Amino acid sequence: MSIIRQDPTTREWVIIAAERNRRPHEHPRPVRTGSQPPDTGFCPFCPGHEASTPDEVLRVPDSGGTGWAVRVISNKFPALGVGGGLERREPGPLFREMDGVGTHEVVIETPSHERSLPLMTDREVAHVLRAYQARYRSLRRDPRLKYIIIFKNHGEAAGTSLAHPHSQLVATPVPPMLLRRKYEVAVAHYDDTGRCLYCDIAEEERKAKSRVVLETDRFLVFHPFASRVPFETWITPKRHQPSFGQVSEEDLRELAPVLRRTLRALYDRLGDPDFNYIIHSAPAEDENKDYYLWHIQILPRLTTIAGFELGSGIYVSTMRPEDSAAVIRDHEQATAVQGSA
Amino acid sequence: MSIIRQDPTTREWVIIAAERNRRPHEHPRPVRTGSQPPDTGFCPFCPGHEASTPDEVLRVPDSGGTGWAVRVISNKFPALGVGGGLERREPGPLFREMDGVGTHEVVIETPSHERSLPLMTDREVAHVLRAYQARYRSLRRDPRLKYIIIFKNHGEAAGTSLAHPHSQLVATPVPPMLLRRKYEVAVAHYDDTGRCLYCDIAEEERKAKSRVVLETDRFLVFHPFASRVPFETWITPKRHQPSFGQVSEEDLRELAPVLRRTLRALYDRLGDPDFNYIIHSAPAEDENKDYYLWHIQILPRLTTIAGFELGSGIYVSTMRPEDSAAVIRDHEQATAVQGSA
Repeated sequence: MSIIRQDPTTREWVIIAAERNRRPHEHPRPVRTGSQPPDTGFCPFCPGHEASTPDEVLRVPDSGGTGWAVRVISNKFPALGVGGGLERREPGPLFREMDGVGTHEVVIETPSHERSLPLMTDREVAHVLRAYQARYRSLRRDPRLKYIIIFKNHGEAAGTSLAHPHSQLVATPVPPMLLRRKYEVAVAHYDDTGRCLYCDIAEEERKAKSRVVLETDRFLVFHPFASRVPFETWITPKRHQPSFGQVSEEDLRELAPVLRRTLRALYDRLGDPDFNYIIHSAPAEDENKDYYLWHIQILPRLTTIAGFELGSGIYVSTMRPEDSAAVIRDHEQATAVQGSA
Repeated sequence: MSIIRQDPTTREWVIIAAERNRRPHEHPRPVRTGSQPPDTGFCPFCPGHEASTPDEVLRVPDSGGTGWAVRVISNKFPALGVGGGLERREPGPLFREMDGVGTHEVVIETPSHERSLPLMTDREVAHVLRAYQARYRSLRRDPRLKYIIIFKNHGEAAGTSLAHPHSQLVATPVPPMLLRRKYEVAVAHYDDTGRCLYCDIAEEERKAKSRVVLETDRFLVFHPFASRVPFETWITPKRHQPSFGQVSEEDLRELAPVLRRTLRALYDRLGDPDFNYIIHSAPAEDENKDYYLWHIQILPRLTTIAGFELGSGIYVSTMRPEDSAAVIRDHEQATAVQGSA
């Protein structure tokens, strides 16, 4: 079982997921949130190998021969698990820890080993989003879980452990510090103005235009004013919607092509870049408040996070978001991408 | 000139250092805080090539034939520079930016292209520390600079741009969010207890012993309770000393072998791992307060920071610090490392 410890200098939580039976003298074997274990040639996510994965949690059926479009399974090397309690322990003054309670699931996005999200059809992407949402809504009901994060790692620099296209869901018993920070700022804005900060940001980006790469009826896609990496991209709903769990079927049918086209433009223009994306959402207990807006943050991993970023928390980007957005807009025009059914 | 922009969702600052004359359609060329430009075979840091580096800021002389033991130069691709003013601009509601004022220097640690810090003598390491401190003390006097961070990237996974052993100093006009956070927590502890948080942590680690890897008269070396990566290592002074600028010559003569042995143990045990280290120090204006303790944080880069960490701020480590510390202690005993003069 993993443990969660609090850093007394920042009050942030760190998960320590050491495997019980691994001898301490071995080099750490990475947990499968981001890692590079050796490529054995056998893919546990491919069709026909279902028995080699941990318990299946959800299956989105498909009319094709493989029987499934999307599978959600428990992570074989989870950062957090179902055993344990929520009470904090204090092994020493200043040292606080608790059991690694939570969940860690893997969303196998497609039966195809090769065809990642940017190359899928809109229908296939919609299947993935529905799977995300079904699991999100299910986990949201567990009162021990304070925050649910859905994320994708694509490529080695982004920490991919397996090539077969997949995403992950982790539910944590403590709100992450980054969320606390974003929430604090969002609540302060609401107190000052009576409005949702993210809705205001999206509106300002729409008006400014220089960083917008795509706009549809329900969604806005832009490169944020203070992008931390070149081609950082956000997808936000245009109407107030705090939680990803609240996305309707109609919203989702429009979100699928928006996500696909956004990823496809990066794929084409940057040559299948390694990237992460994260779906940020209001904590379960705050879903009906006015403060927050769920959004998808895409981070291409073209450069390495190094000592300056790790030591200060200040990112250094080598491209203005106005310029990266212009690159993508030009590309979209040049290729006149048609949505695929 | 670079610009510094504030992310309206977190109020943290991001540096955008786009090169003026680079065409926007080119892939971003990384700023040399952490990047992997192509290896041309020519090393600008090697002796004889001094004319190919930007202005020299400091030289530590050596009695050997090369004439220098350490050189400090301006960074050729700086994240921050001397031009510009401190006033914030607001290109739009919610969008705040300022000129990228600050400094960015490179410390060339040795004339030797191959022999990195873990393989140096204590005397050579002491030269490097003196150079760090001389620049730190000089920059500290500039009232525009709110924070000075000294860091080292070693190896590609840690974001090294050049192989020749080097570190960097960056001085920023805004306090980084990470520092604000650490400071906030340290001040609260002081208000509660009347004591310096870091001094208390070091004392608790000394008593616990299970995570200590080395102790000398003036310094303690341990793997923190909530280590975010396997083999994360901190070096702290044992006496209250808020700023790295306050380290005395006697302290420094003891710190050099401590740093060398600590890095050497990681080098030997983990096979020359890629790593970052950061020297954290009290902000210039708070150097005489009781809240903070300068410390060196060493982060081996054995695993990749991925979507979960980027999205939540929660690190996942695959090794308990008690186990990693035991590995290093066993190694130290087995090799009975002797300090070299």
